[in-house]
Amino acid sequence: MKPSIPKGTRDFGPKEVQKRNYLFSIIREVFIRFGYQPIETPTLENLSTLTGKYGEEGDKLLFKVLTNVSGEESGPAKRGLRYDLTVPFARFVVMHQNELHFPFKRFQIQPVWRADRPQKGRYQEFYQCDADIVGSPSLMYEAELAQIFDLVFAKLGIPVCIEVNNRKILSGIAEVFGISSHFTAMTMAIDKWDKIGPDGVAKEMIQRGISEEIAGKLIDVLGNNDLEFYRNLLEKSETGQLGINELDTFWRYLSAFNPTNKIIFSPLLARGLGYYTGCIFEVKATTVEMGSIGGGGRYANLTEIFGLPNMPGVGISFGAERIYDVMETLQLFPTQFSERIKVLFVAFDEPSHLYAFKALAKVRENGICSDIYPDPTKLKKQIKYASDNNIPFIAIAGETEMENNQFMLKNLDTGEQKSYALDELISFLKN
Amino acid sequence: MKPSIPKGTRDFGPKEVQKRNYLFSIIREVFIRFGYQPIETPTLENLSTLTGKYGEEGDKLLFKVLTNVSGEESGPAKRGLRYDLTVPFARFVVMHQNELHFPFKRFQIQPVWRADRPQKGRYQEFYQCDADIVGSPSLMYEAELAQIFDLVFAKLGIPVCIEVNNRKILSGIAEVFGISSHFTAMTMAIDKWDKIGPDGVAKEMIQRGISEEIAGKLIDVLGNNDLEFYRNLLEKSETGQLGINELDTFWRYLSAFNPTNKIIFSPLLARGLGYYTGCIFEVKATTVEMGSIGGGGRYANLTEIFGLPNMPGVGISFGAERIYDVMETLQLFPTQFSERIKVLFVAFDEPSHLYAFKALAKVRENGICSDIYPDPTKLKKQIKYASDNNIPFIAIAGETEMENNQFMLKNLDTGEQKSYALDELISFLKN
Repeated sequence: MKPSIPKGTRDFGPKEVQKRNYLFSIIREVFIRFGYQPIETPTLENLSTLTGKYGEEGDKLLFKVLTNVSGEESGPAKRGLRYDLTVPFARFVVMHQNELHFPFKRFQIQPVWRADRPQKGRYQEFYQCDADIVGSPSLMYEAELAQIFDLVFAKLGIPVCIEVNNRKILSGIAEVFGISSHFTAMTMAIDKWDKIGPDGVAKEMIQRGISEEIAGKLIDVLGNNDLEFYRNLLEKSETGQLGINELDTFWRYLSAFNPTNKIIFSPLLARGLGYYTGCIFEVKATTVEMGSIGGGGRYANLTEIFGLPNMPGVGISFGAERIYDVMETLQLFPTQFSERIKVLFVAFDEPSHLYAFKALAKVRENGICSDIYPDPTKLKKQIKYASDNNIPFIAIAGETEMENNQFMLKNLDTGEQKSYALDELISFLKN
Repeated sequence: MKPSIPKGTRDFGPKEVQKRNYLFSIIREVFIRFGYQPIETPTLENLSTLTGKYGEEGDKLLFKVLTNVSGEESGPAKRGLRYDLTVPFARFVVMHQNELHFPFKRFQIQPVWRADRPQKGRYQEFYQCDADIVGSPSLMYEAELAQIFDLVFAKLGIPVCIEVNNRKILSGIAEVFGISSHFTAMTMAIDKWDKIGPDGVAKEMIQRGISEEIAGKLIDVLGNNDLEFYRNLLEKSETGQLGINELDTFWRYLSAFNPTNKIIFSPLLARGLGYYTGCIFEVKATTVEMGSIGGGGRYANLTEIFGLPNMPGVGISFGAERIYDVMETLQLFPTQFSERIKVLFVAFDEPSHLYAFKALAKVRENGICSDIYPDPTKLKKQIKYASDNNIPFIAIAGETEMENNQFMLKNLDTGEQKSYALDELISFLKN
């Protein structure tokens, strides 16, 4: 049989895994430095945990798993594959509430699955990298999360713009224009601003039942992203004022550090309004065309659906797969990783092979990533193996070397070579 | 709704994740040092890749995933969850044969799924940690893999015994006793030696059709684990001699290093004979009762089933879940991890909270894992949060401290406290 893998899934070879691990390790390191603790939840969740949490469209995209256990009858699917990391986190918090200390800061870097039609850049199995705080309404955390976005992208070398908005400001706008009942229509239209432009947004608002006059005024207003302008505009909306105050607090905390990237207020940011109740974040790369590479926001009540009310939460998510693509485009990955094999031992007959294998044991004992060609064979073949595997040095165990208890170390890039006793070889390779 | 997770799956809280990562990182570090490259394969494989590869029993234990893609009709399951790492690796090698350089050394640390009846210590979702070499028959690799077992368990602090056998020796024994046609009967009985003892093994051999006389002789022979004895016994079996020679070569390479643990020849080791064709390994903890915590062996032909013949392979697997349990029993995990938060900033009003938050930004810039209580509140509550989260220091931002541009650092274990300027605080915490 000719083997294949399901459409929408991927194999990762060594180079890809190293690059992906590099990306994850930077995100993980920043999360940890900011006091987030790692948790992991199972791949399989009860279907009842997942269904109804992602809307009708989401329910369709759930991968269902048959629950036949050896010997039992196979019935209808009762389990599903994890669809995101937020719902499992909420479930985790409720199940483990008595072991946790609130505010609880956790991060999670795990794959999720969606039965989506596969296409370029859209996979059925992909990683999410989330950090959330649950159990505190403090806006300090919004500032901290913006700082994490800034720091991670600075470390990765990706120039970004971090956009911030607040659902309460959008509510306030709808209120002062007298279209609170059309809030969803308004925000769904606004959310498409980048794609269809202001005229398109106006058109869509009108289609969704907002009067032409109001739509026109809204477009004029939304072209402005000066917070002071909105402070005046929303003077008479209590909710709007709350939103402005929240952004003020956010900004006050944010002033504690100097971000590398731009962090701006954007009244056009209207994503995730089905669940976000306060701040909303979105991150876009500024030098590459590539939608959103990060996002997040505040939930008034993360865990109520599982029976634990009064648990405010705020979190962010890194779009790892897209960030990977951005880094490839901008050539931001290191060219060498610490996993690189530093030296390949080569030998020409059985005694020299064993002599080299013995030396290799010592080299590895010293923590040096190293290898040996498995058989004594032609030098050319062994050198090809070294260069195929991107190994910079070979250590040759010839007859003369064995007699003198040495190895000839050859730099495959420069052709330079020099004899070393084993301990000299080790200290050379260690540096 | 009251949330739950499927039986046989687990949530991992921060402490468990840290311990698990510690375990995986040691295994990974040794694999990398020995020149193995990381790969990752998808969770979902085509069912056709998986079925028929694990025997009838295995087929029953496959988790099947419904392949409905949004908008399409849902049909019978065409995909399954990864059941182990070996079959996906074989599939990977065949699919990517033109990009790989042989011998190809890979490692893989990923979860696998089995629809097994859950019970204590047996999960439906668990991690495997495998290293394999494909594309070389060299027995040097068997010695290298034994060395990896030895080194990993030495680093983890678990005393083990690494047992080695060779299928060809077992074949030779069956041959010289004239029961080659009862090879499977013989080895299946031998495999139970630890559980049912020599008398039980003899009884089972007889039940499986071996004569009482031969069974008695076999039991006498197998009580012996001196390789010289078998060299003589198998003088007339060509296959047996091959097995002895392979072990000789293995032993010659093994002499290149001084193992920390015992590595012994065991003619009673008869696992995995459905697929192993040469060396067989098994690792047992010597100070804890806990079956096998590692195993492996050589396949004459790893990839033939997927259409690529002549690809010898040899590999080992660490039983991560059991090793975790052994380490818990022997209390071998570190008590502190580098993910630990070192200091919690505490403040008493809005200005001091902002003052502390600013300092925290600098502390984190210096790579120190640190946090702040989200609101200015009572000291007692903030200290409780620090001790609940196992944070050793608090940095107090009181009125006096703010005036002097300092922080009072308090060691929560000893009660000692001392004032520091911010840069002094940072250099203290860095060490």
